[in-house]
Amino acid sequence: MTDETTLHAIMTQLGAKARVAARQLAIASRDMKDEALRAAAAAIRNRAAVILSANAQDVAEAEANGTSKAFLDRLLLNDARLEAIAKAIEDVVTLADPVGRVLAEWTQPNGLRFERVATPLGVIGVIFESRPNVTADAGALCLKSGNAAILRAGSDSFRTSSAIADAMRQGLGRAGIPQDAIQLVPVKDRDAVGMMLKGLDGAIDVIVPRGGKSLVARVQDEARVPVFAHLEGICHVYVHAKADLAMAERIVVNAKLRRTGVCGAAETLLIDRAIAATHLRPLLNALREKGCAIRGDADVVAIDSHASLATEEDWRTEYLDAIIAVKLVENLDDAIHHIATYGSHHTDSIITDDADAARRFLAEVDSAIVLHNASTQFADGGEFGFGAEIGIATGKMHARGPVGVEQLTSFNYRVHGTGQIRP
Amino acid sequence: MTDETTLHAIMTQLGAKARVAARQLAIASRDMKDEALRAAAAAIRNRAAVILSANAQDVAEAEANGTSKAFLDRLLLNDARLEAIAKAIEDVVTLADPVGRVLAEWTQPNGLRFERVATPLGVIGVIFESRPNVTADAGALCLKSGNAAILRAGSDSFRTSSAIADAMRQGLGRAGIPQDAIQLVPVKDRDAVGMMLKGLDGAIDVIVPRGGKSLVARVQDEARVPVFAHLEGICHVYVHAKADLAMAERIVVNAKLRRTGVCGAAETLLIDRAIAATHLRPLLNALREKGCAIRGDADVVAIDSHASLATEEDWRTEYLDAIIAVKLVENLDDAIHHIATYGSHHTDSIITDDADAARRFLAEVDSAIVLHNASTQFADGGEFGFGAEIGIATGKMHARGPVGVEQLTSFNYRVHGTGQIRP
Repeated sequence: MTDETTLHAIMTQLGAKARVAARQLAIASRDMKDEALRAAAAAIRNRAAVILSANAQDVAEAEANGTSKAFLDRLLLNDARLEAIAKAIEDVVTLADPVGRVLAEWTQPNGLRFERVATPLGVIGVIFESRPNVTADAGALCLKSGNAAILRAGSDSFRTSSAIADAMRQGLGRAGIPQDAIQLVPVKDRDAVGMMLKGLDGAIDVIVPRGGKSLVARVQDEARVPVFAHLEGICHVYVHAKADLAMAERIVVNAKLRRTGVCGAAETLLIDRAIAATHLRPLLNALREKGCAIRGDADVVAIDSHASLATEEDWRTEYLDAIIAVKLVENLDDAIHHIATYGSHHTDSIITDDADAARRFLAEVDSAIVLHNASTQFADGGEFGFGAEIGIATGKMHARGPVGVEQLTSFNYRVHGTGQIRP
Repeated sequence: MTDETTLHAIMTQLGAKARVAARQLAIASRDMKDEALRAAAAAIRNRAAVILSANAQDVAEAEANGTSKAFLDRLLLNDARLEAIAKAIEDVVTLADPVGRVLAEWTQPNGLRFERVATPLGVIGVIFESRPNVTADAGALCLKSGNAAILRAGSDSFRTSSAIADAMRQGLGRAGIPQDAIQLVPVKDRDAVGMMLKGLDGAIDVIVPRGGKSLVARVQDEARVPVFAHLEGICHVYVHAKADLAMAERIVVNAKLRRTGVCGAAETLLIDRAIAATHLRPLLNALREKGCAIRGDADVVAIDSHASLATEEDWRTEYLDAIIAVKLVENLDDAIHHIATYGSHHTDSIITDDADAARRFLAEVDSAIVLHNASTQFADGGEFGFGAEIGIATGKMHARGPVGVEQLTSFNYRVHGTGQIRP
């Protein structure tokens, strides 16, 4: 533990350094930023031994603390995973520079020419848990978008994240970009998170939390600066009366089971009552064959006795597991109403051959991502063509859905005059 | 005073009604919304006697409380001002519908077609002080952008705002739009503001404060939902070495004195030392002739003995009055540095004939609005061509600069598939 005065001094200094770096980074050319990213990737490869040794210590400590196998697997690095981290940084190089894009341009009758131009947000605070690759991913995305990053790694991956951040900073310095463009909080104190959430005296422009429910809850409660919030992904697939059964089967199985632990995994299946007789059992059997447990409402259980009875809580649950809640709905309106009541405004899909029903679903379901005849597992920046993402936002302010480099920018208005004054 | 349990019940119900109205409003057509706005304007005209009588009571009470003449003038309505309020609502009718705009559209190699489409934000909480016209302006802008509004009027204009809101709601009902699209907080309790700032159990998506520093400070401190913050407008005019003197004089006088009480009024004048001998005195004389007091740094006072000496505090002060702080700077970098140190990221202007200097100023000054050879008083949604604005945002998230109907929208991604599943 660091005493409070020292911690405050450390964090305030991090914030001040980030602001200075952000001002320099905001006007750095694409070439400079890309060179810095390439140098950071090279430095990670050059320092592989140091990083892997730091990781071995983190893993040994986590093992001694009796953490779960799944947790250890997320924490563990090896040559291949480290190479993937370096490669991911180089992938960010290939993305277009989001800064300086002219988003709109117009001229007023008085001759003033207006441009709306993308600018960096400034300083981004990223708070994450055990995955060490986030250090590199988040640092690279922030840098590409002209933002300074203050990264707060989970204490379990502290040594690994420090080693990765050190390597990246070395690369940055070599490329003439201020090293403080990427800073890792150098202490494990949980109070450091609280200070970041209060913005470090105005130094932090936005917080990106990457972690489980307890982190998100803390951020919701304590943050005094804007947050790219990712709440739950209670995603629905709605099989409409006019759905093709084979397509519905394929999409439902993929949406639920391709990967159950991702936020875009389907958690609830809604099926129109009109097709329950023909569609329900084949869909449930297809899921069950792949190992999925079914929790249905009374109508579903009446048709399929293998299903257990869902409780009210099931409609609000993000299982992140091979479990699905299934409900019969009366029609499109009922489905939309269910999603409005229980959903999390993340990702929802309708399966139908009826273009009007699809249009209404896409227009009326207020979620970041709404799909027609496609799997909810497409909720991913890469699948959108955004390149890497720092997360998926479920709020409606600024960024919504996948947060890639474009979403990490703000904008300003640049007004070109010839001496105009306002009457 | 309303007791806490009752107040909580009232506010929770406001929030719940707003959410229901917001869902209906989100899918209302442009025609329906415009008809509702026209009906609201008509209802205000029809109920002029009721509104003016309510206003007379507010004014009488304010007079009895000994409030200032400026305050009374902001509060007072008459036939002409009420007509202007109705007309302003009709002006909003003429604006294009910001909802449903396709902001981007692309297709991925797997055939998925993506659209990014503008959607309403949901429920907007507007907290304002004595100007009764804000009731109508804010209500109309929120409605046009498909958002439900919860309006909290200052207690001094409570009767007037209630009468205006009642009239508008009557108009909405007649046009088939839910009346709860516009709700006024029906109690004067200041605790109601605190509840709104906490979001009314998730009912409020964003808060727009319209008021002085004490309101803004309270919002900064207490808000747990996103805010379109308007901090100070410490706006700079920088007269660069290559400035045309006549143009500089015209712009500086307009920027400072056209209206001193608006947020886009210039507060600080920066002048390159290289042109101090030729430009400083004419600029200061032009300001002084129009009644402006000058506070200069030591170098300025040495050249112009009529100026009083500025203190450190002056560079950070939003006078909103006929006072200007004046400083000699070494060059463009020094000017940019001064603005970064003391500015409020609102609106700043450079006067120069040097295109490179202008380009650098516009790219490197991190303010919502940066101008070249034009007055800072153009910081206004109407001057931008946005139509009416609900305010000017000085934050960098979501909206920045004038907040018109487009800025009151969010977006979502609508993905059109033909059965795609994610590999």
